[in-house]
Amino acid sequence: MPESFDHLRVNRDRLWNSLMAMAEIGATASGGSHRLALSDEDGEARHLLIGWCGEAGAEVAIDHVGNIFARHPGSDPGLAPVVIGSHLDTQPMGGRFDGVLGVLAALEILRTLREFGVTTRHPIELVDWTNEEGARFAPAMIGSGVFAGLQDEAQALDVRDSENLCFGGELKRIGFAGPGPVGGRPIAAYFELHIEQGPILEAEGLEIGVVTHAQGVRWFDVTIEGAAGHAGTTPMNRRRDALLGAVRAVDLVSDVARAHGPDAVATVGQLSVRPGSRNVIPGSVTLTIDARHPDGTVLARMADELASRIGTVVASPGLTVRVDEVLSFDPTAFDQSCVAAVRSTAEQCGYGHRDMVSGGGHDACNIARIAPATMIFCPCVDGISHSEAEDIRPEWANAGANVLLHAALEKAGIAG
Amino acid sequence: MPESFDHLRVNRDRLWNSLMAMAEIGATASGGSHRLALSDEDGEARHLLIGWCGEAGAEVAIDHVGNIFARHPGSDPGLAPVVIGSHLDTQPMGGRFDGVLGVLAALEILRTLREFGVTTRHPIELVDWTNEEGARFAPAMIGSGVFAGLQDEAQALDVRDSENLCFGGELKRIGFAGPGPVGGRPIAAYFELHIEQGPILEAEGLEIGVVTHAQGVRWFDVTIEGAAGHAGTTPMNRRRDALLGAVRAVDLVSDVARAHGPDAVATVGQLSVRPGSRNVIPGSVTLTIDARHPDGTVLARMADELASRIGTVVASPGLTVRVDEVLSFDPTAFDQSCVAAVRSTAEQCGYGHRDMVSGGGHDACNIARIAPATMIFCPCVDGISHSEAEDIRPEWANAGANVLLHAALEKAGIAG
Repeated sequence: MPESFDHLRVNRDRLWNSLMAMAEIGATASGGSHRLALSDEDGEARHLLIGWCGEAGAEVAIDHVGNIFARHPGSDPGLAPVVIGSHLDTQPMGGRFDGVLGVLAALEILRTLREFGVTTRHPIELVDWTNEEGARFAPAMIGSGVFAGLQDEAQALDVRDSENLCFGGELKRIGFAGPGPVGGRPIAAYFELHIEQGPILEAEGLEIGVVTHAQGVRWFDVTIEGAAGHAGTTPMNRRRDALLGAVRAVDLVSDVARAHGPDAVATVGQLSVRPGSRNVIPGSVTLTIDARHPDGTVLARMADELASRIGTVVASPGLTVRVDEVLSFDPTAFDQSCVAAVRSTAEQCGYGHRDMVSGGGHDACNIARIAPATMIFCPCVDGISHSEAEDIRPEWANAGANVLLHAALEKAGIAG
Repeated sequence: MPESFDHLRVNRDRLWNSLMAMAEIGATASGGSHRLALSDEDGEARHLLIGWCGEAGAEVAIDHVGNIFARHPGSDPGLAPVVIGSHLDTQPMGGRFDGVLGVLAALEILRTLREFGVTTRHPIELVDWTNEEGARFAPAMIGSGVFAGLQDEAQALDVRDSENLCFGGELKRIGFAGPGPVGGRPIAAYFELHIEQGPILEAEGLEIGVVTHAQGVRWFDVTIEGAAGHAGTTPMNRRRDALLGAVRAVDLVSDVARAHGPDAVATVGQLSVRPGSRNVIPGSVTLTIDARHPDGTVLARMADELASRIGTVVASPGLTVRVDEVLSFDPTAFDQSCVAAVRSTAEQCGYGHRDMVSGGGHDACNIARIAPATMIFCPCVDGISHSEAEDIRPEWANAGANVLLHAALEKAGIAG
């Protein structure tokens, strides 16, 4: 009969110190992290992670799109791994914990297993997925998307950033175009620890969110074309000012979200004016739309309304509008057995918990398409995320890592 | 009694060929001109002009800030000159006619006067003002500004470009730091032929704009601060989205312009969203306002309305607004006698004409502070300017030059 590791706990301070060391890479003046996917800083973060994984005795593998895996071997070589992790890339001027917590909690688990000589039946693999944020290279979640067969590898490698640098070239440049094929192998279970990125857990004084579903997401790029012209010499009634159309689109996005109830959200996060000179009438504007809802039917209705009404609200005389969908992500119902493992683990560890819906898209949503998967949330201060002000407490990170440890152990099994 | 030159006309093809030859200097791939002030190209253009002026028998003088004058002598040495001209420098990747037309039409007039042996009572002087565009050295209109005593000569010579090269040094480098004092001498009348840089004349099928006023200009920078947040997890009613405030400001700018009649224009030409990520709620937005009106009282009212109402329209809960004025330029009422000379000349030549307000700032606005001055507009295709696509027709250049000729002759008088 296998030894019981029920009272095994991660090392809270070691986890916290690793988080703080990682936050030094791309550190911003206001206490955040700026570590865009495949930037020099992302490369430096990856090297730091790999060094730590090696010290923890894990075997590191990198695939063609730069996903990093670090394996704590299992006793039965024929069994698929239990995978735990998240991502190290950040938003521009983003926070220190979004994604990073899930990767470094996974590292802390590898360290703990080795420290206490725990042998599991299934291997346990840490993963760092490439380009979760999508801030530099759209769409988001390219690494897990290609892994799960939801995105094409060749297309992913050819994606361009705003300076026309391509994903594959930048991956090579930072030395992380690995030799391994992407995906095509079974995963026994996938757990991703992540900050909530919302205010609920902290407000209710709970340590753990048991994530049962994730919202669906639709992303659109909107281009409005008018005509540039001299700001001093073109009368108001002869203008084709693309920005005056764009403001109607921004209002529409907000209106559509509000019309679909408290669970609906929609955002214009980017808006660029060209030529962008103070005395030139805007000739064209590009903007993005992010629309989300946990119910796929409602989300489809929101997307239809946006696409069908935008032409009408924007198209004052002389303006043209083009709408391109760049991402459509169905709502996710996470694996019930994995969800139950998280819930019972939180209970056994004595942590306050509640069931939750994830508002963000996460790599776990991609992996849930091909394997049993779920997420674990921990609180974040004031619900702030995607911001330099993003913050958590060491106890919250510790609780999340302990639940991750025992959920993974439950699925991996202790070797007899 | 002096001979009548009422039927004198410029040489259309000679004028056009000179325009095309000048456009070769700094020619761009897309048919524009790139000839920044005091660049090698500006130097080359100046040498070409001076050579042509010499061939036309004019006496060339250059002052300390590089303004070039070329004089057709008058019969009465005690009389002040009638000055005609504009500038040879261009916007970056700019057009072939903005400024250049006014200088080369003046050259064509010197040539015509010499060809037909016309002796005027007042001298007629061509001028090429240094650095009208202000694209390389800010502010704009330095040459005419120093000439009119509106800018300090020593400060002007010390202005730096973005590579920290100074105006005085670059002027010397291209060989145009002349010996003559800047200004301090009377001008009998000043006429500047320029492309309209707007769509009105072409749309109405007219050859000549009789410019009665130049608009005043006010520039503002607006900063709207809200709170960045996660686009998926922040409910609509908890957001402080700076872009939702900014769109109210854009509407206000347009509304204020429309409320002040056909002569009022106002433009938001730049708008930047921060952090500018598609799944992050905009935490702050900066935008620019350019407001113009030919009547200083109305312009002041527009500026007051913008400044006082923007706080109210933008400040939905949780947003703050700051408005900074960055430029204020008073309107110009051009000299009524010069304006009348242009109008009657256009009429006598049989050209379709209308009174107009100049939307842009021009050297003529500076000279109007110290001498009787006005401008003559000719159409440009689709109103496009400050662009490689800027274009005019040879007939339009010809009509403008003929009006410039006869307006100048009216003020200079024919020697008896």
